[in-house]
Amino acid sequence: MPSTVEGDPLAGWRLAQAPFYRPVAGEVRAFEAAAAARLPVLLTGPTGCGKTRFVEHMAWRLGRPLVTLACHEDLTAGDLAGRWLLDADGTRWQDGPLALAARHGAICYLDELVEARSDALVVIHPLADSRRVLPLERRGELLQAHPDFLLVASYNPGYRGLHKALKPSTRQRFTTLAFGYPDPDTETAIVAGESGVDPLLAGRLVALGLRTRRLQADGLEEGASTRLLVHAARLVQAGLPARAACLQAVAAPLADDPDLQAVLADLVHAAFE
Amino acid sequence: MPSTVEGDPLAGWRLAQAPFYRPVAGEVRAFEAAAAARLPVLLTGPTGCGKTRFVEHMAWRLGRPLVTLACHEDLTAGDLAGRWLLDADGTRWQDGPLALAARHGAICYLDELVEARSDALVVIHPLADSRRVLPLERRGELLQAHPDFLLVASYNPGYRGLHKALKPSTRQRFTTLAFGYPDPDTETAIVAGESGVDPLLAGRLVALGLRTRRLQADGLEEGASTRLLVHAARLVQAGLPARAACLQAVAAPLADDPDLQAVLADLVHAAFE
Amino acid sequence: MPSTVEGDPLAGWRLAQAPFYRPVAGEVRAFEAAAAARLPVLLTGPTGCGKTRFVEHMAWRLGRPLVTLACHEDLTAGDLAGRWLLDADGTRWQDGPLALAARHGAICYLDELVEARSDALVVIHPLADSRRVLPLERRGELLQAHPDFLLVASYNPGYRGLHKALKPSTRQRFTTLAFGYPDPDTETAIVAGESGVDPLLAGRLVALGLRTRRLQADGLEEGASTRLLVHAARLVQAGLPARAACLQAVAAPLADDPDLQAVLADLVHAAFE
Amino acid sequence: MPSTVEGDPLAGWRLAQAPFYRPVAGEVRAFEAAAAARLPVLLTGPTGCGKTRFVEHMAWRLGRPLVTLACHEDLTAGDLAGRWLLDADGTRWQDGPLALAARHGAICYLDELVEARSDALVVIHPLADSRRVLPLERRGELLQAHPDFLLVASYNPGYRGLHKALKPSTRQRFTTLAFGYPDPDTETAIVAGESGVDPLLAGRLVALGLRTRRLQADGLEEGASTRLLVHAARLVQAGLPARAACLQAVAAPLADDPDLQAVLADLVHAAFE
Amino acid sequence: MPSTVEGDPLAGWRLAQAPFYRPVAGEVRAFEAAAAARLPVLLTGPTGCGKTRFVEHMAWRLGRPLVTLACHEDLTAGDLAGRWLLDADGTRWQDGPLALAARHGAICYLDELVEARSDALVVIHPLADSRRVLPLERRGELLQAHPDFLLVASYNPGYRGLHKALKPSTRQRFTTLAFGYPDPDTETAIVAGESGVDPLLAGRLVALGLRTRRLQADGLEEGASTRLLVHAARLVQAGLPARAACLQAVAAPLADDPDLQAVLADLVHAAFE
Amino acid sequence: MPSTVEGDPLAGWRLAQAPFYRPVAGEVRAFEAAAAARLPVLLTGPTGCGKTRFVEHMAWRLGRPLVTLACHEDLTAGDLAGRWLLDADGTRWQDGPLALAARHGAICYLDELVEARSDALVVIHPLADSRRVLPLERRGELLQAHPDFLLVASYNPGYRGLHKALKPSTRQRFTTLAFGYPDPDTETAIVAGESGVDPLLAGRLVALGLRTRRLQADGLEEGASTRLLVHAARLVQAGLPARAACLQAVAAPLADDPDLQAVLADLVHAAFE
Repeated sequence: MPSTVEGDPLAGWRLAQAPFYRPVAGEVRAFEAAAAARLPVLLTGPTGCGKTRFVEHMAWRLGRPLVTLACHEDLTAGDLAGRWLLDADGTRWQDGPLALAARHGAICYLDELVEARSDALVVIHPLADSRRVLPLERRGELLQAHPDFLLVASYNPGYRGLHKALKPSTRQRFTTLAFGYPDPDTETAIVAGESGVDPLLAGRLVALGLRTRRLQADGLEEGASTRLLVHAARLVQAGLPARAACLQAVAAPLADDPDLQAVLADLVHAAFE
Repeated sequence: MPSTVEGDPLAGWRLAQAPFYRPVAGEVRAFEAAAAARLPVLLTGPTGCGKTRFVEHMAWRLGRPLVTLACHEDLTAGDLAGRWLLDADGTRWQDGPLALAARHGAICYLDELVEARSDALVVIHPLADSRRVLPLERRGELLQAHPDFLLVASYNPGYRGLHKALKPSTRQRFTTLAFGYPDPDTETAIVAGESGVDPLLAGRLVALGLRTRRLQADGLEEGASTRLLVHAARLVQAGLPARAACLQAVAAPLADDPDLQAVLADLVHAAFE
Repeated sequence: MPSTVEGDPLAGWRLAQAPFYRPVAGEVRAFEAAAAARLPVLLTGPTGCGKTRFVEHMAWRLGRPLVTLACHEDLTAGDLAGRWLLDADGTRWQDGPLALAARHGAICYLDELVEARSDALVVIHPLADSRRVLPLERRGELLQAHPDFLLVASYNPGYRGLHKALKPSTRQRFTTLAFGYPDPDTETAIVAGESGVDPLLAGRLVALGLRTRRLQADGLEEGASTRLLVHAARLVQAGLPARAACLQAVAAPLADDPDLQAVLADLVHAAFE
Repeated sequence: MPSTVEGDPLAGWRLAQAPFYRPVAGEVRAFEAAAAARLPVLLTGPTGCGKTRFVEHMAWRLGRPLVTLACHEDLTAGDLAGRWLLDADGTRWQDGPLALAARHGAICYLDELVEARSDALVVIHPLADSRRVLPLERRGELLQAHPDFLLVASYNPGYRGLHKALKPSTRQRFTTLAFGYPDPDTETAIVAGESGVDPLLAGRLVALGLRTRRLQADGLEEGASTRLLVHAARLVQAGLPARAACLQAVAAPLADDPDLQAVLADLVHAAFE
Repeated sequence: MPSTVEGDPLAGWRLAQAPFYRPVAGEVRAFEAAAAARLPVLLTGPTGCGKTRFVEHMAWRLGRPLVTLACHEDLTAGDLAGRWLLDADGTRWQDGPLALAARHGAICYLDELVEARSDALVVIHPLADSRRVLPLERRGELLQAHPDFLLVASYNPGYRGLHKALKPSTRQRFTTLAFGYPDPDTETAIVAGESGVDPLLAGRLVALGLRTRRLQADGLEEGASTRLLVHAARLVQAGLPARAACLQAVAAPLADDPDLQAVLADLVHAAFE
Repeated sequence: MPSTVEGDPLAGWRLAQAPFYRPVAGEVRAFEAAAAARLPVLLTGPTGCGKTRFVEHMAWRLGRPLVTLACHEDLTAGDLAGRWLLDADGTRWQDGPLALAARHGAICYLDELVEARSDALVVIHPLADSRRVLPLERRGELLQAHPDFLLVASYNPGYRGLHKALKPSTRQRFTTLAFGYPDPDTETAIVAGESGVDPLLAGRLVALGLRTRRLQADGLEEGASTRLLVHAARLVQAGLPARAACLQAVAAPLADDPDLQAVLADLVHAAFE
């Protein structure tokens, strides 16, 4: 059975070291204001642009534990709030991650919130408005959130053909920060910093990434994220030639369609002749 | 296992302090009449216009505990009525929130009733007519509601494209009070009262909110609710400039569409040059 | 665990006092003939026209306990027939409400039968024909119904756009009594009798109700039922002016559409100038 | 826990008295041949034409217990075959009705077979062909059917708009006997015999039934079955006038459509002026 | 609890006597080659053409136990692989039929494989390729199949309107043997051999069967299988005239449509005047 | 209950012998670079082209245990991560295969990843990015992956009509290696090596395979994979003539359509006259 340090039940969720993060605009100040005002924060933007890293950075900066949950269609309200476990002595209540974070003052980060089921979405409503409570119906407890508790969620509104959207009653409970890709200089610094390659190679990878993002007008679902460029750089550090690394880490993951694949391979070949 | 004060099993659901509420029209008197006549009340109106706050106010005013439940597709009749829990000594009955409220004379507030599943909707029928009973089939008990028990629900009929509607057999069990946004003076007082900003800034935020509501004719799903204006005011109190606060708390949460975003940002810039 | 009086397991389901009911036509005699012939009875008619009250009246008149079940999509055959409960000493059988009624000679009233799932519908078939048995497969028992057991169900065939219908194999097991709204004099007596208002006001409320029913030709789903008129009368008794009471109890519950709302408000204003 | 006579676990499923049945054509001989050849029998025909009664008659005639199961969408293979029950001493196997009938040589009658789920349908396949076995996978037993075991099912192919049909792999495992309404003289004898009314009245009821069956060309889903005519006769025996009895037992159960109702009421009035 | 002979856990799945089977073409040799090469075998062909009988014959011939499973939409991977059972001493693992066959070297026959759920289909993948393993994730065991284990499945690709098909990743794991109806002389010998009727009558039944199969061009879903002809012959042996036997066993099971029924009845009358 | 060697809980998942594998291009070096950089690898390509064999080869080469999981619609996050088992002493945690691999440093191979449910897909996200953690919410543990843990998945993008696709947020977490059929000489060596037939026959089988792959332009879903050619060779080794072996192992498994079957049979006859 899980054992937790009695003095700090969230010890396992405290970041052991400072995550690498380069602030882009006023997002740190905006997040700090929301935390001070105890208002939930929604981060919007494309895959791999650094939303998760930013939350880790802010958790480190504010000195709070971070409980992260990837949302999906089968995540139930019970998974979030908690449940009764059967024990040798009967049943025993186990706080779910949301209850744990609310009770002990952590940041609770719900990744890809729109993927959650409706019951998981409404369970956060009373936590996300001025009441700041989590009704644990099955336990018969109305949990009042810790003053340091902060609700953060992410949401990618850009998928083409996505039919799911957040309802206004959920959306309007969050203050919202929009993320995009970093500017080229910042992105080059990130790629170099996360992989250890030299800035020159990092800059060429970033230039390649920019070219793939322009293909979105030609039918590509999403361009290369910063993450993909870091992947390519790390493969180079592991000994692969840059061209092979980019095909494996950038071109192949972006599309299945043979025509788009050919265009992407051409971009890679042009970038690393 | 949950422990409850034997003398008052709903102690945890009594409001500890008076919630801030400014009456708008005759809604307090109408609610009191329904409570006196023991008739259920349905509150209709847009997101964030104050329905939940009103119910808290009335619970405080009438001195009754308030059991709030956010309805959703996965809330079952068993979640409402109660269930058998497995125990070291066998099974033990645990009242659900609806049974708890009916047994001990609380106000039971079902938020967004239309989101509930059909089994949860019909389980309230015999409680919502002259019988005022809750059949607990699984326990073999016909629970007669406490004289102070009052059933309240909310319902937002305004979502465009919403296909779900309440059936007449449910709808006609409730007397109905329609809510809208407060008039500008009242709303200014609410924004100032809830955030601590000065009335002048509150008034400029309310004026911005009114302009966003007019955008509903241009494709915006819902305009800024009073809640969003309070959010912006609290971000200002936490140290953000008014313009940044409004972009984060008002403009960004209202739309994903880039064109609508641009229009909203223009409104913010015009309001706080 | 539920405790039941050993001598009368259905003591909790006996009506403690005579319900208020005014017979309309030959429905009492027809119901008595079906009870004498041990034939099931289906009551058809609109929401709130008195079907449930009539069944309560007949249960009182025949001196039998009444077990009422609101049908819904998630009511299973197991909910009706019974199930094994886990106990400190192993498993223990608990009769469901249908088995309880069949075993001990109660009237079992299935409200809105058409909402039940197919498994719940077929479980009543052998009880509803000349066999009068309930096979409890999971218990390995073929329960022969008590001679006083009577199966009653309700069904509202009038919802426009309703796709659900009872299958002939279910429908033809029931003798059928069709209910409508009572004639104005009877309805006036009911409204006055149930609320305590004077007959003059009751008559004006009934006249208003009649006018709303004529709106069904103009797109209103259902007109005001007798229940809504009683609600309005009780709000008046609780101190509201008649016009406010009618808006809250009659007009608002009948429609969400603003145009229909305006027409209904006009009717209320014309009725109580 | 269910207790069964050790010597005859199916004692509760033996008919205590001979059911009333009038043979129509060669169906008794055909059924006896199938029983002798150990071939399954499928009975097809409209609601209420006597299929169930015929199976009861044959069970009585052959001196075998009869296990009847109404099929539905939620009847699982586990419901048919059996399951492990939790006990104070661990788990205990309980034969389902199909296993019980196969093990001890009963007739197993699956009413409305087409309503069963696919897993329930395939579980009968190895019992319904030359293997005559029921694999109880969860118990690890391959149950060889008793020589007296006979599988019988019913199926109403006549519902208009019914999309469900039996697959050839199920259908071709059964020999098939088609049932229709009895001829007028036989039906008159049945109505008189089952209700106790005099043959003259019974004949007039049968004539009414015939007229309703001709309405199927005009949009009526099914005409009055023999069962409905017996219902009307029993209401007359219970004291109702014939006209009221026919409206309640024949006209009202056949249709919801007001136009069809008017035509049916006219038929009743013409039959019993 | 199931008891199994320790020395041979599959004793109950060994055929007690040789099944009647007449080889048609090279199917015996082809099956033996697949068994020798340890390659799975898929049998395709219409209902009742002898696929199951052939597998029984080969199990007898190869001297291996035969575990047969009828696939359906609700058969889960857990049903195939096994599960933990709750016991007085905790939980106990019970091999499912597929694990049992793989562990002890039986033939596992999955009847109508295409009806299985996707999780049941993929669970056989690692058993059906060169790995010959069954990962029992819930037990934490990677079960290596016994050298005598052989996987066999059946599949009827001929149903018109059937949308389900096996995916290439499943299909290409099986070598495939296509079955059809036997030639008339073989089929006559089968009908006579399985029922005991004289070859002359068997031949007339086979001729009738051939005529029904030609009706498939006129809208009949499937013609009479060999099984139906055997049924008719067995009814004759049980005392029915040939014409009545053919109507009951051949014509009625083939179609519900009255026009097709009339054509089939004409064929029967022409065959047995 | 499963017993595992305490010193090496994954002993059962270590390959006992080197699998037969012929490198095609730079895939071994690319995989080694991804393993060194601790980046997930996605293998794309048609059925039976050797993806699974390649993973086994790399596991052998890197000396790591290999945990393989076939994904399907019913594989839940709980199946992957682990669950609480009920025990004589209460509940006991059992790591799922993904947790087992992450904890002890195995390669976890998710076969046909796109078939997994959304909850299973998102549970791998934090393991598949720079965090390399697996949150075991139900256990209250944030599992940090072992440095040797490597996530590998396969995906066949080529099925025509397949609507399922991996979302960018999943896809972009993997570096990607595209597989195709091996060149003829390599494939001939594989077929000879895996079956023991002489290279001449192997070459003729490979030539037949190439011809079937060209039929994809004419409506064949997929051509013969290397696996099918090996199957045919093994049937020849087991004693079948080449033509019969190819019909059983190559032609019949590729199509149900009679026209395509005829074309495939012609190809076989032309190849082995």
